[in-house]
Amino acid sequence: MRVADIAATTCPVARTLAVIGDAWTLLLLRELFLGQRRFEAFQAHTGMAPYLLSRRLARLAAEGIVRRVRYQTRPARYEYRLTEKGLDLYDVIVSMKRWGDRWTSRRADPAMRLVHKSCGHRMTPVLTCGECGEPVEARDVRVEMGPRMAAERRRQREEFKAGTRRGPRADETGREVLR
Amino acid sequence: MRVADIAATTCPVARTLAVIGDAWTLLLLRELFLGQRRFEAFQAHTGMAPYLLSRRLARLAAEGIVRRVRYQTRPARYEYRLTEKGLDLYDVIVSMKRWGDRWTSRRADPAMRLVHKSCGHRMTPVLTCGECGEPVEARDVRVEMGPRMAAERRRQREEFKAGTRRGPRADETGREVLR
Repeated sequence: MRVADIAATTCPVARTLAVIGDAWTLLLLRELFLGQRRFEAFQAHTGMAPYLLSRRLARLAAEGIVRRVRYQTRPARYEYRLTEKGLDLYDVIVSMKRWGDRWTSRRADPAMRLVHKSCGHRMTPVLTCGECGEPVEARDVRVEMGPRMAAERRRQREEFKAGTRRGPRADETGREVLR
Repeated sequence: MRVADIAATTCPVARTLAVIGDAWTLLLLRELFLGQRRFEAFQAHTGMAPYLLSRRLARLAAEGIVRRVRYQTRPARYEYRLTEKGLDLYDVIVSMKRWGDRWTSRRADPAMRLVHKSCGHRMTPVLTCGECGEPVEARDVRVEMGPRMAAERRRQREEFKAGTRRGPRADETGREVLR
């Protein structure tokens, strides 16, 4: 399976992954949310080589997640800013921060704190129900599959039983190819 | 840079990415949150080849995100269940669903709906401030960097300027190596 196949599925999680589902892109989004805008800053803080970084920035620009803005002429220099579509990925990144603080750190002092500007408190982000406002965890939620996705999943199971469901490709070294 | 380097950084987002930051793992987490528990179901719905899937399940088990439970003897068969640590990744996955619904679909009927069991409504997940309960977006939040992370980032910039910041390795085919 290649990334194009993931993008073509009905599931919104899979379609999101087709756009931002690699560690470098997510690390780059972290930098953008930390307020960084310039190529060199992204390089410095992610450790990405220029060609890897260029490729991912071009992809994010093509997807409308960042826009390229010229900040200097002669020579022309550009910076990258999150669009509305990009800013709307905030809950993905902030959820990873929260989980990382809780499960991967043994330090009492968090690496960074979030301050909610309007209430002035250091905040923990909480996922809530948009209807009743209560905090929500996995166990509190039931999934209702729509007819398109239900049909797609039925087909996946049938194809799998029949042995016709395609697996991901692997190149000659045995390493899988996602993109 | 390799995944071990990301895991060793101070940033909680990066440390989370070191554990779950690849599209296959995140797709597998989607299946677990949809209630799937068995190897064959994961294969059918993700399209992953058995060895890729095994590797990722083993990693998730080693990280304590899933646990392996025997559901049959003679022959022994196992299923995989999310632990508390795994269930706590719900907001990451559900945020990706929300973003995918909003930005990657042109269909009026969503692929799946979430129902909040206690209030009974079809819900949209909303990120809120744990202190005041108000909905929170990127612009509403200020980051306070702790001393360890601030020092680490200062060092990254200095190393980058001095040309000693390591970039990601690429193998002989020019493809980057993250893990």
